[in-house]
Amino acid sequence: MLGTMLNNVRSAAPLVHCITNYVTVNDCANILLAAGASPIMSDDVGEVEEITAICSALAVNIGTLNQRTIPAMFMAGKKAAALKKPIVLDPVGAGASKLRTETAAKLMAEVPFSVIRGNISEVKALALGGGSTRGVDADAADAVTTATLDDAVIFAKRYAAKTGAVVAVTGAVDIVTDGSAAYLIRNGHPMMSKITGSGCMLTALTGAFLASNPENILEAAAAALIAMGLCGEAAYRKFLDRKTGNATFRNDLIDAVFSLTGDALEKGARYEVR
Amino acid sequence: MLGTMLNNVRSAAPLVHCITNYVTVNDCANILLAAGASPIMSDDVGEVEEITAICSALAVNIGTLNQRTIPAMFMAGKKAAALKKPIVLDPVGAGASKLRTETAAKLMAEVPFSVIRGNISEVKALALGGGSTRGVDADAADAVTTATLDDAVIFAKRYAAKTGAVVAVTGAVDIVTDGSAAYLIRNGHPMMSKITGSGCMLTALTGAFLASNPENILEAAAAALIAMGLCGEAAYRKFLDRKTGNATFRNDLIDAVFSLTGDALEKGARYEVR
Amino acid sequence: MLGTMLNNVRSAAPLVHCITNYVTVNDCANILLAAGASPIMSDDVGEVEEITAICSALAVNIGTLNQRTIPAMFMAGKKAAALKKPIVLDPVGAGASKLRTETAAKLMAEVPFSVIRGNISEVKALALGGGSTRGVDADAADAVTTATLDDAVIFAKRYAAKTGAVVAVTGAVDIVTDGSAAYLIRNGHPMMSKITGSGCMLTALTGAFLASNPENILEAAAAALIAMGLCGEAAYRKFLDRKTGNATFRNDLIDAVFSLTGDALEKGARYEVR
Repeated sequence: MLGTMLNNVRSAAPLVHCITNYVTVNDCANILLAAGASPIMSDDVGEVEEITAICSALAVNIGTLNQRTIPAMFMAGKKAAALKKPIVLDPVGAGASKLRTETAAKLMAEVPFSVIRGNISEVKALALGGGSTRGVDADAADAVTTATLDDAVIFAKRYAAKTGAVVAVTGAVDIVTDGSAAYLIRNGHPMMSKITGSGCMLTALTGAFLASNPENILEAAAAALIAMGLCGEAAYRKFLDRKTGNATFRNDLIDAVFSLTGDALEKGARYEVR
Repeated sequence: MLGTMLNNVRSAAPLVHCITNYVTVNDCANILLAAGASPIMSDDVGEVEEITAICSALAVNIGTLNQRTIPAMFMAGKKAAALKKPIVLDPVGAGASKLRTETAAKLMAEVPFSVIRGNISEVKALALGGGSTRGVDADAADAVTTATLDDAVIFAKRYAAKTGAVVAVTGAVDIVTDGSAAYLIRNGHPMMSKITGSGCMLTALTGAFLASNPENILEAAAAALIAMGLCGEAAYRKFLDRKTGNATFRNDLIDAVFSLTGDALEKGARYEVR
Repeated sequence: MLGTMLNNVRSAAPLVHCITNYVTVNDCANILLAAGASPIMSDDVGEVEEITAICSALAVNIGTLNQRTIPAMFMAGKKAAALKKPIVLDPVGAGASKLRTETAAKLMAEVPFSVIRGNISEVKALALGGGSTRGVDADAADAVTTATLDDAVIFAKRYAAKTGAVVAVTGAVDIVTDGSAAYLIRNGHPMMSKITGSGCMLTALTGAFLASNPENILEAAAAALIAMGLCGEAAYRKFLDRKTGNATFRNDLIDAVFSLTGDALEKGARYEVR
């Protein structure tokens, strides 16, 4: 079932509209292509509505947000909503500045996001209106560990129920929930935090999974997270073999997505549903 | 002769001014360096005229165009024209939004481009004032295949004759024409469409070839396309050998440009002139 | 001592605020992560003061500067100064346009930079108010060679004394000086000029070294340059072994930073102090 969702991406080859930061935009484009989707990056108010209209999903990532691109995020989000297209939000660095926290909160208020994908600090900043984000990384105090997992699941479920969005919190254990069921995913590797863009790439990839599986948002988001985690594990095995570093790890991660099959996703998935 | 054109790039080491999208800008810079040229990226109206003036060619790429950068494209284009420097246009995504189609058309009207380098859908959007671009990729209905090649050559020749620019349409078979002669180039590999930036990198590279061979725009553009195609083939052989993915393919492609010699270009070229 | 400075980066894991160009921003983020630091890129006036406030250093890089980001450079610089955080300036392309030269000069006048890191042409453009920068590369006429080294050291010392900043001029021989002592560093390899971003990455890395060693700005900057040079040498050995190209060299360079230890830095350093 989860594997089928990747197969659907490869057969549908959906166009995904990304309004995303300039730090990791190239990696986002390449991971979409690796999964069989096609990226189009566009962030100007003069065209985002048209671009959203020809795409099958919209991914909004607020890293390096600015006065020029923020209005485009709202405009594209509303257009996607009007056209019933899946929309994913990555609240990069929410909690690190008022501009990020407030923009993300306002986007949440005005755009019916299908999925919110962030680390625990970012999602807490959104849910609680502030927080202790450590830049764009999760704050150590917030880390989702075995000890804090139960609380984190309750928090994520409540926030999903409140917002109507699927909430995908990534960390040592990933949580994906629509407010009633929660996928707890144990794929992935800490090395993924040693490159920039693991989260951004996952958000873009989630957009592709939603685009190709719009009837199963919860499962599609879970499948995207599992796919990313499995590819992180594969890239880490290469890292161990060849003693490289984080730049090569990044390439190996994208390469792993390029080779990932639905079967391998299905067999490698390590999760429980609560 | 075509090989000499690459040698000229390596000996002249031309500075190429790129106004280009933020998705693939790093790859554009590295491929210019790989070919022996030097990149300078600059897109602000406060400096583009001066930057163009110290460069030997200008490459304008409209991907991620925006209100701030569009005026800089016109300003730099006019300056380059006044200084008789070669200029190449990449109408990324023309046909996907009015902003892209109209900006590209207006650029064509106001700037005497030496070369227009795009996929068939983009060039059709420019020539016909609209179209069915699939985001930034060519629409399947437009694909240049053996069956449609004759028509595509006629179309490209007419558009070149009408505009006065060399038209370089890339696809399964590439067509480069000045309106009378047409190079039909069969180098390259479909894997090149599995990375972001194949087209953008080629446009930047074309800028370097024009800069170093300003007396032979048609042949210089053809040589740039052949160089890119050959390097795509080389990268694909590495992909087959090592079972990697699109991220490594991208690196191998740029690496292949780094190693490409004029002799290898000459010997590997597969083209006919009609 | 110099090796300890890298160890301090790895143990402190400082957040570094980068206002930097979109060409090499991904590489800057990944090299910071490779060294054990964390990047946050932010360039909007709506948030840069808050971002600077949560970081341990600020790196300002004027490549692809524009009307929107220039005010953010001043705002962040002044905030960092008020909070006594180390600040590094990379005057990319100073001398290539009035906008770059004047922005860099104005930044120097209004922000008490800890370190200025550029090539000799850029630093001369700053010091002398103009110059013959070859785009973003050093002009051949300015190259620091054995023959011109003595003059360059005198120039750098004077400029450091005049500005109160540590001046780090990179080239065949790097010079790092606070006006009295000068480190002359002979690590590195010319292949580093065949990728985009060697300088930008070094500037970001310098930010991390300053953040973790704020009491020893001169030595911290020297250690950052030696680290970068050593990793360039390591990447070049891989290049020779595997006959790759500049794209792979870039990855190998970042990978080398990922693996670099304080001990290896200490043992590999080739410098004299004058």
